[in-house]
Amino acid sequence: MSNLYAALIHYPVVNKNGATIASALTNLDLHDISRATKTYGLKAFFVVTPLEDQKDLIHKIISHWTEGIGSQYNPKRRRALELIRVHDAYADVIERVAVSEGMHPITIATCARKYPHNLSYPECRAMLKNGNPYVLVFGTAWGLSAEFISAADYVLAPITGKTDYNHLSVRSAAAIILDRLLGHP
Amino acid sequence: MSNLYAALIHYPVVNKNGATIASALTNLDLHDISRATKTYGLKAFFVVTPLEDQKDLIHKIISHWTEGIGSQYNPKRRRALELIRVHDAYADVIERVAVSEGMHPITIATCARKYPHNLSYPECRAMLKNGNPYVLVFGTAWGLSAEFISAADYVLAPITGKTDYNHLSVRSAAAIILDRLLGHP
Repeated sequence: MSNLYAALIHYPVVNKNGATIASALTNLDLHDISRATKTYGLKAFFVVTPLEDQKDLIHKIISHWTEGIGSQYNPKRRRALELIRVHDAYADVIERVAVSEGMHPITIATCARKYPHNLSYPECRAMLKNGNPYVLVFGTAWGLSAEFISAADYVLAPITGKTDYNHLSVRSAAAIILDRLLGHP
Repeated sequence: MSNLYAALIHYPVVNKNGATIASALTNLDLHDISRATKTYGLKAFFVVTPLEDQKDLIHKIISHWTEGIGSQYNPKRRRALELIRVHDAYADVIERVAVSEGMHPITIATCARKYPHNLSYPECRAMLKNGNPYVLVFGTAWGLSAEFISAADYVLAPITGKTDYNHLSVRSAAAIILDRLLGHP
């Protein structure tokens, strides 16, 4: 087991015009990213939103699959969705991990754009083995806000494919990043 | 550009009891997998379903994003969804690629279970460079039927993470597989 946590941020993220917003939940983000975090052995998957109705919705989805009809229909979903922790604010995530690990986690933001001091995948993969706690952060909508990214300890390099098209869904990006950092080579 | 095509199969796939079924469409499969195939430079993304209402639905979704309001709201979605080709049957996909490439494509099935002669990722990555056309096939629901898999030329190794949990969504699995086969190392 790594000391890695994932966080999916619905605030502060930017919309297509670059304005900072609180984004709406996408049901399949919960399913796909919890299944990927379970596959790669992460300790928890934090979902951050300040909106009360969105938190209620997340709790309904989780309980459907962990306690409700869904848990009998597909018990494998339960094992993944159990990893989800819902928080109002990113600061609460950091606090929660700090209490649980006995030290402040190191934060790694993800972004589809290049940054001057991007952390490469081999560097990040090696770093994760040093026993410290890490939080890997994904943005919804058009991505994490610039202020959020500049406050992170590291910014992971964007995923480059074979073309100039770099508009993967956050679900696909999270899956690829976890595989690059923790999958068998 | 590789000579690689992707196909997402809604029939013949199996349900949780192992019976062969035609599965229902998941909207985000179209978005996520088309965006991944665009990112990694595939030539087309085939979606196979024999159900007329499902084909209508797929065409509605595609036209919303390629011609309708969605194409103005988010032109980047258009570039991805344009790669989608809808067919009744897998045989039509093979025929279409054969006509377009001047030779029958080599088929690579994917499955979350191990097979005796699985193709490894390094082997497959090397093979894709030889100029031949390939179709990489993904199953919806509980996966491609055993008969379908046994008729493929190759079966790619399952994705292994850090745990015994191997229940990624087809969207996540497709993203990881394309990155392993075509992404920068």
